[in-house]
Order: sequence, then structure tokens, then C-alpha cells
Amino acid sequence: MGRIAPLPPERIEELLATSLIGRIACATPEGRPYLVPMGYAYDGEAIYAVGFPGRKIALMRAQPLVVFEVDRGIAEDQWESVVAEGTFEELRDPAMCEHAMRVLHGDGPYPEIAEGCVLFRIVLTTRTGRFEVPDEAA
Amino acid sequence: MGRIAPLPPERIEELLATSLIGRIACATPEGRPYLVPMGYAYDGEAIYAVGFPGRKIALMRAQPLVVFEVDRGIAEDQWESVVAEGTFEELRDPAMCEHAMRVLHGDGPYPEIAEGCVLFRIVLTTRTGRFEVPDEAA
Repeated sequence: MGRIAPLPPERIEELLATSLIGRIACATPEGRPYLVPMGYAYDGEAIYAVGFPGRKIALMRAQPLVVFEVDRGIAEDQWESVVAEGTFEELRDPAMCEHAMRVLHGDGPYPEIAEGCVLFRIVLTTRTGRFEVPDEAA
Repeated sequence: MGRIAPLPPERIEELLATSLIGRIACATPEGRPYLVPMGYAYDGEAIYAVGFPGRKIALMRAQPLVVFEVDRGIAEDQWESVVAEGTFEELRDPAMCEHAMRVLHGDGPYPEIAEGCVLFRIVLTTRTGRFEVPDEAA
């Protein structure tokens, strides 16, 4: 086991900005956890994604306070991670949807959002990062 | 966006057996989600880990029904993931602790478990896997 330390803010932002897949944890009405991975993009304030209609979207609509996580590891004792609390927001306003598509797909062209799919963001309200380096490198 | 399909059982087992980092989602007594990454090892039935005393351990002791997730991605439309429900079990029985250390560290020598740290396993009760391949490869 190596040395674990807080990840500096600039490395928190870098990990959020460069990861391909993050994970969202929600809570069910019965107080059980629910956890799914998903592709996303980040604009420095919120993460943006398109969700298929399903349990994840239903749970976030019912209880919008969620946790988002990204990490990167090359060994069991050499990794960095960010855990962020956030609030689910379904996007319907056209200007906000266009911003989301720009964050997700750059200058376009933008793919069609499939029937029933939901464009949403999670506004990050707290960000906590940690990293571990092996003992010999500490 | 590519084609998403269920991950076959043998690839579920392979992803659980070869990933370095997984994520655990727990629920707080207030019904909020909590989510942390951690190193682990897998014996085909349960994942094993050592936890620092802290919020994760306290939450799992209070509510042992958790969700465990691993994934591997090389592009936004090219990834595989496993989401498993499981039950937290703190390990104290010497034979069980030795099994856990063997799963975590092979034939040894086994590192000391730091004062206050908790050796535990999460017995996986359900396993669901998905993968996405890009449209052009579908």
C-alpha cells in the first residue's frame, strides 16, 4: 500500500475534463444505492450526458442529489480519483440544449438524440480528489 | 453512439477478475448515495478489500446492501462494464481472513493490515454486464 493524499484542484479539473467514462450513484426510494457507468463531457461546472429512458433517469428525476465519480489507475497503488456531489437537471431549454451538445460534440454536426432519450447535466456542487503513489516513489 | 448489448457471463467474470479498481456505492441513512473507488481482488464469488476506518465502512456496517461496479473503456462508444449487487461482510474468522489475504496477495508474504483497518468482502448476488461497440464495427 502506498501513500494516499488529496488531489490538488488543478488535477481534479484535469481528471474530470479528460476521462471518457464516469459513474453515477443514485439512491432508490427504498434507500438502496444504484450505480451505473456512462460517457460524459465536462464544461468546468457540470457534466453532460444523454441517457436512455430507464431506471437511472427515473431515479434521478425522483431524487436529483447524486454522486459522480471518475478515476484513472495504472496499478493497485498508483491511481487518482475524483468524487463529486451534484444535482441532476434535465435539459429542455433550447439554448441550454445547444450548449450541452457543444460540450458533448464540439462544433458539430450534432447527432440526433434518439426518441425518448434525455439530455441532462449534473451540476457539481462539491469535488474531492485523492491519489496514491507507491511507497518507493513517495 | 454505437450498439449496446449484454456482456456474456464469461466476459463478466473476466472483467471482474482482471480490473484493478472498482467502485462501491452505498446509501446513507438519509437515503443519499455515497460512492468510492477502491482496489480489490475477486475469487469468483466475492470481491475482497481492505478499508480504512471511515465513512464507507460505517455506511456499509449500517446498511450492507451495496452495488459494486467495474468498467473498461477505450472510447466513448467502446467499453464494457459490470454492475453487481452484493452484501458487505466484515471478515474476522482467521480462516476467512487467510483466504482473503490469499485472494488479495497470492501466496504471500502478506502485508500487515494497518491498525483499525477492516478486511472485508462483498458477496456478489447479481451481476449485470453491458458493452458497446462502435456502429461501424457492429
